Amino acid sequence: MNNFIYHNPTELLFGKGQLSHLTEKARQLGTSVLLVYGGGSIKRSGLYDKVVGLLQEAGCRVHELSGVEPNPRLSTVKKGIEICRQENVEWILAVGGGSVIDAAKAVAVGVPYEGDVWDFYLRTAVPEAALPLGTVLTLAATGSEMNRSSVVTNWETQEKLGASTTFPTFSILDPEHTFTVPRDQTIYGICDMMSHVFEQYFSHTEEIALQTRFAESILKTVIETAERVLANPEDYDARATILYCGTMALNGTLPVGVETDWATHKIEHAVSAVYDIPHGGGLAIIFPKWMRYVYRENVSRFKRFAVEVWGVDPSGKSEEEIALAGIEATEAFFARIGAPTRLADYKIGEEKLPVMAEKATPFGPIGSFKQLTSADVAEILRMCL
Amino acid sequence: MNNFIYHNPTELLFGKGQLSHLTEKARQLGTSVLLVYGGGSIKRSGLYDKVVGLLQEAGCRVHELSGVEPNPRLSTVKKGIEICRQENVEWILAVGGGSVIDAAKAVAVGVPYEGDVWDFYLRTAVPEAALPLGTVLTLAATGSEMNRSSVVTNWETQEKLGASTTFPTFSILDPEHTFTVPRDQTIYGICDMMSHVFEQYFSHTEEIALQTRFAESILKTVIETAERVLANPEDYDARATILYCGTMALNGTLPVGVETDWATHKIEHAVSAVYDIPHGGGLAIIFPKWMRYVYRENVSRFKRFAVEVWGVDPSGKSEEEIALAGIEATEAFFARIGAPTRLADYKIGEEKLPVMAEKATPFGPIGSFKQLTSADVAEILRMCL
Repeated sequence: MNNFIYHNPTELLFGKGQLSHLTEKARQLGTSVLLVYGGGSIKRSGLYDKVVGLLQEAGCRVHELSGVEPNPRLSTVKKGIEICRQENVEWILAVGGGSVIDAAKAVAVGVPYEGDVWDFYLRTAVPEAALPLGTVLTLAATGSEMNRSSVVTNWETQEKLGASTTFPTFSILDPEHTFTVPRDQTIYGICDMMSHVFEQYFSHTEEIALQTRFAESILKTVIETAERVLANPEDYDARATILYCGTMALNGTLPVGVETDWATHKIEHAVSAVYDIPHGGGLAIIFPKWMRYVYRENVSRFKRFAVEVWGVDPSGKSEEEIALAGIEATEAFFARIGAPTRLADYKIGEEKLPVMAEKATPFGPIGSFKQLTSADVAEILRMCL
Repeated sequence: MNNFIYHNPTELLFGKGQLSHLTEKARQLGTSVLLVYGGGSIKRSGLYDKVVGLLQEAGCRVHELSGVEPNPRLSTVKKGIEICRQENVEWILAVGGGSVIDAAKAVAVGVPYEGDVWDFYLRTAVPEAALPLGTVLTLAATGSEMNRSSVVTNWETQEKLGASTTFPTFSILDPEHTFTVPRDQTIYGICDMMSHVFEQYFSHTEEIALQTRFAESILKTVIETAERVLANPEDYDARATILYCGTMALNGTLPVGVETDWATHKIEHAVSAVYDIPHGGGLAIIFPKWMRYVYRENVSRFKRFAVEVWGVDPSGKSEEEIALAGIEATEAFFARIGAPTRLADYKIGEEKLPVMAEKATPFGPIGSFKQLTSADVAEILRMCL
């Protein structure tokens, strides 16, 4: 186990009706709030009216940043920063999924920063202050509700980059708020959270028995619950389980003392930056190919994955055959729940493959399980065609 | 899954050499510090000198509360509160195991409180303020380094009670600080952390798949590591794994959305309050008997425990036989690592059994897996003789 520092101050309010705590939270954080949300889904579901009502009950003046994109854009973030400065906004409330929360985080750290907020994503500056941020999560996927990461797309330069920004002060997670998530978004969310676990599971670090079992616990729980949630989108317990798994997959619990990878995310960000495809869909395509490309670096880790997560029967098989059976099971699962399996599903051909390979490696080789150059990335993307 | 609120602001600094962060932490928290510790073990190991040196480097005036007992006493806590008030102490540093940290927590909430700190343990008052508290952990056991619980013994009334007090601001966990822990203390620590998991695992709450797997993950990891750590007390990786398991067993991760039990802890506290035996030793005796007394309330939960945690082969056995095999495996494990198995090991007979049964139930019946009256507790204690 490596040395680590763990600190996660986010307060999680989980379950039916927890939105009722919003008024007391608002009273603590100030009377001028920026409400950040995406398209109209929270208006259709009635959540928007409820949230605004509770904020007004707390005496808040509500300013709005709406229309945050599925891959949130730098231009939108900058609009939010401007509103906050003009209106002396004291805190931010994000209502939506990971994109909305990521944009809100960027606004939160951008407001007190004198330079360009994009600096944080280019890693030329580190946030030192932030407006307080609360979230009301409506989608089980990114874990952004309980971590400090934010991913933003600069559409002018076609760059999609992640930065360490700020933890939400509080996050309200009511499984009922996810009942109306469309089928494809539910599928993408499942692919996304599983991918987060993969990034932290495939590691060469030794003596990480508990972290390994925690990761397998999340994967097994997501796998056994995914089809239940797709069959019945209003199954409270299944939605609750998936929602909780999404948070635990990326709230800092899994990577403690572990060297993690994150190459596949960088590859997907490059694809999304060029083609604007759904993040979870991209991951479902790329991850199994990444696995095939790298598994020989540590066959025994992939063997364990196959046996523990997918229940592959090891008897009569070589270590490599077991490892490959686990990768096949991963591919089969993504296909079974209806995730895309090839770039062709998004009508992506080989034209921009070298561009994407370059974009995936802006600061040099990526990943740690196997270090990948832009040539490696191009090869993995070719396998995805 | 039940509704829950999770919030744990403690910063964990884990690994070799993390003590070096103490100076920067001290600079943030103030120049007048109360150093809380137990017997002389941190002086013998050299840790005391290192800590005092780092505090002085940060410009701190160091006041001391030493001699904190294994079951920390109210009288000691009150002495600490007095020192803090006289010396205008700004923050507290606990260096030791759970008892030292629990006493330091009591001091931290006692200083700003006008009434008697024992009120918090009698549940007639709730702490509203606390001095900041840092910890340097030297024993893998109670999890106190990352939760807000504190257990204190009032020796005048022979009451050992727990209260919700304050989270440490930071905790430094270096596995090397546990190398010199004596064999019996190492064993008690293992029994203690496993018991914490049991209290949160045996539950009737449904739809808690992830919490269940996390609990099993901790138990399996402790079980496979325990004998390694006992065979070689300076095995860094084994000490690190046990240390991390102890923290995760009681930092609020396992009980989210779950109805937990805690009857066995209350029974053990009653025994310790009367006989001053080691907490972990008492738990090792009582828990398997509690299991035998209550397993019929939810045989399938105990069956799962047997199969998943202990690897009991279920073939050809009834559900009850499997459940009982799991309880037997628990008893056999405690015996194998050298934990006490009967109250007679501490020369405790039946004389004060009714007194202990009453003390275990001061506010009425205890536990939720099966509600236990003082008569039930007496029966369980009789099984432990």
